Amino acid sequence: LLPALRGPDIGTVGEFGLIAAMTAGLRRGTGVLLGPGDDAAIVAAGDGRVVVSVDTLVQDGHFRLDRTTAGDLGHKAAAVSMADIAAMGAVPTGVLLALCLPADIAVDWVLELMGGIDAECTTAGACVIGGDVVRGDRVVLTVTVLGDLQGREPVTRSGARPGDVVAVAGALGRSAAGLAVQERGVRGDWPDLLAAHHRPRPPYAAGPEAAGLGATSLIDVSDGLLADLGHVATAGGVTIDVRSAAFVPDARLAQAARAVDADALGWMLTGGEDHALAATFPAAVRLPATWRVVGTVGGGQAAVTVDGRAWSGLLGWDHFAGPDLTGRQR
Amino acid sequence: LLPALRGPDIGTVGEFGLIAAMTAGLRRGTGVLLGPGDDAAIVAAGDGRVVVSVDTLVQDGHFRLDRTTAGDLGHKAAAVSMADIAAMGAVPTGVLLALCLPADIAVDWVLELMGGIDAECTTAGACVIGGDVVRGDRVVLTVTVLGDLQGREPVTRSGARPGDVVAVAGALGRSAAGLAVQERGVRGDWPDLLAAHHRPRPPYAAGPEAAGLGATSLIDVSDGLLADLGHVATAGGVTIDVRSAAFVPDARLAQAARAVDADALGWMLTGGEDHALAATFPAAVRLPATWRVVGTVGGGQAAVTVDGRAWSGLLGWDHFAGPDLTGRQR
Repeated sequence: LLPALRGPDIGTVGEFGLIAAMTAGLRRGTGVLLGPGDDAAIVAAGDGRVVVSVDTLVQDGHFRLDRTTAGDLGHKAAAVSMADIAAMGAVPTGVLLALCLPADIAVDWVLELMGGIDAECTTAGACVIGGDVVRGDRVVLTVTVLGDLQGREPVTRSGARPGDVVAVAGALGRSAAGLAVQERGVRGDWPDLLAAHHRPRPPYAAGPEAAGLGATSLIDVSDGLLADLGHVATAGGVTIDVRSAAFVPDARLAQAARAVDADALGWMLTGGEDHALAATFPAAVRLPATWRVVGTVGGGQAAVTVDGRAWSGLLGWDHFAGPDLTGRQR
Repeated sequence: LLPALRGPDIGTVGEFGLIAAMTAGLRRGTGVLLGPGDDAAIVAAGDGRVVVSVDTLVQDGHFRLDRTTAGDLGHKAAAVSMADIAAMGAVPTGVLLALCLPADIAVDWVLELMGGIDAECTTAGACVIGGDVVRGDRVVLTVTVLGDLQGREPVTRSGARPGDVVAVAGALGRSAAGLAVQERGVRGDWPDLLAAHHRPRPPYAAGPEAAGLGATSLIDVSDGLLADLGHVATAGGVTIDVRSAAFVPDARLAQAARAVDADALGWMLTGGEDHALAATFPAAVRLPATWRVVGTVGGGQAAVTVDGRAWSGLLGWDHFAGPDLTGRQR
């Protein structure tokens, strides 16, 4: 029996019992004026603006119940959405969870999921403020996150200018490597990379930091670095060239690439699920160690190149069309 | 072939093509500082607070593709969530749609859905500001709504006091009647009640109005009036008695009840999906015609009664346990 199905199921406690159990142990944040339990939640928006984003993870599309723990899934679902808030230069404040659950899911599994969400929220400075629970035949998690710009100007995708440098904060390729070793069945040797896949660690603080440093554009790397820099190039009407030499796989990534006969550079350039941040900065900005320069912005028709050439490998992910094998810019 | 499956499917346009088509015709609101297309949206929160709520509708649980049009479903999904914002005394501002779609869904169906959401948002004074689209085996719609209290104090579920009156704004029982005539297959004669079921019309303006009038509690009627007044009774530690004489079914409701051998009063007391608003007010408040007094608040252990007695019929809906047939207060 899957862990998700072990123990009393949610049908035994009912909707209201389940919600009471899910919200019982949640941490409460200072900016939360009204938490779970009413028709809506209320959060402080001190500078008169609120940043908001939503992301959905679907069973058997984004995760499998037999390959991830509920705790890791909770961490990941919260991280995926909170990374989008960081990618505007904002700090996550409140998180809402809309959860679709089969009736035979174990109560303990749901509570472990909530524990993961709550813990990831704490890491990022946010807390759970509300949600909805409905019945369905597969698990679907939709996480909405509110964020606070704290008086800063938001950093969008569209401000990159010729002459800027391109920089990255956070891990690249480790989640893709974890997925690859898991799919090849050599998972036992790679707890660190499997953890990177199942519980990504977005560099939340790097988002507001980039805004403070004067970043001209900022994006969450969720589709893969080249694909997401493609969004920046298109939105800004610029070209972006990254230097392959700037992407040095660490020993573990190189070792995993040899083990499954894959390309570590490919993982770093096209693996999205680490939820790193990519930004462009005026060349004169002195960047702290958080940010690694990996390329430059130029003029001309929007495009992303690697060492001056089109990338020849797999580019990124389209949820309906599947992986893009053409190397074309989308 | 279902309308949802007629014409080119979303697999042919891909994720990015679909999102571009979905967002192309959207109306833009004045309080929206950054709309769809970036990592997150930004909305003005003029009084330094933001109200937020989320609701999910699942195919074959909340709706069936062969019984609702995409346009009606869009209206309903937006209405269900925006009613929760009104139920705090706030005005909806921005709406995010997280959409799980099978790959064989027709592009036209998705665009009609967006049209319904956009139109309902306009009715309530809000607009679509972002979302997420992912692939799954059933349609799942999760709508997040932000709201603005415009300087008013929020009205929660918990403030009802002995001596208050209980009042309702909006329709009661019409959605339940529409569902009943549909399920009995006598749908042809009841376009108005079917419309009430498929496209509810929450009294959005009545929420801020109640706050302005000094309502002591306010709730969206989504589980059924008695069940939702039960939440108010529990949260406030009060008893609520409603007078059955205050619920006069209109001619159509009475006619439908006779046609399907049902109880119109039962529809009005336990049907939830009209998304009416229920409030308690100090007895001295002079209520405008929007609000119909239906009962009174008393002291004692939390309970809801009809004409001083426990309601003997079906009470409300629990998503996991199914309908409550016991008449017990939850």
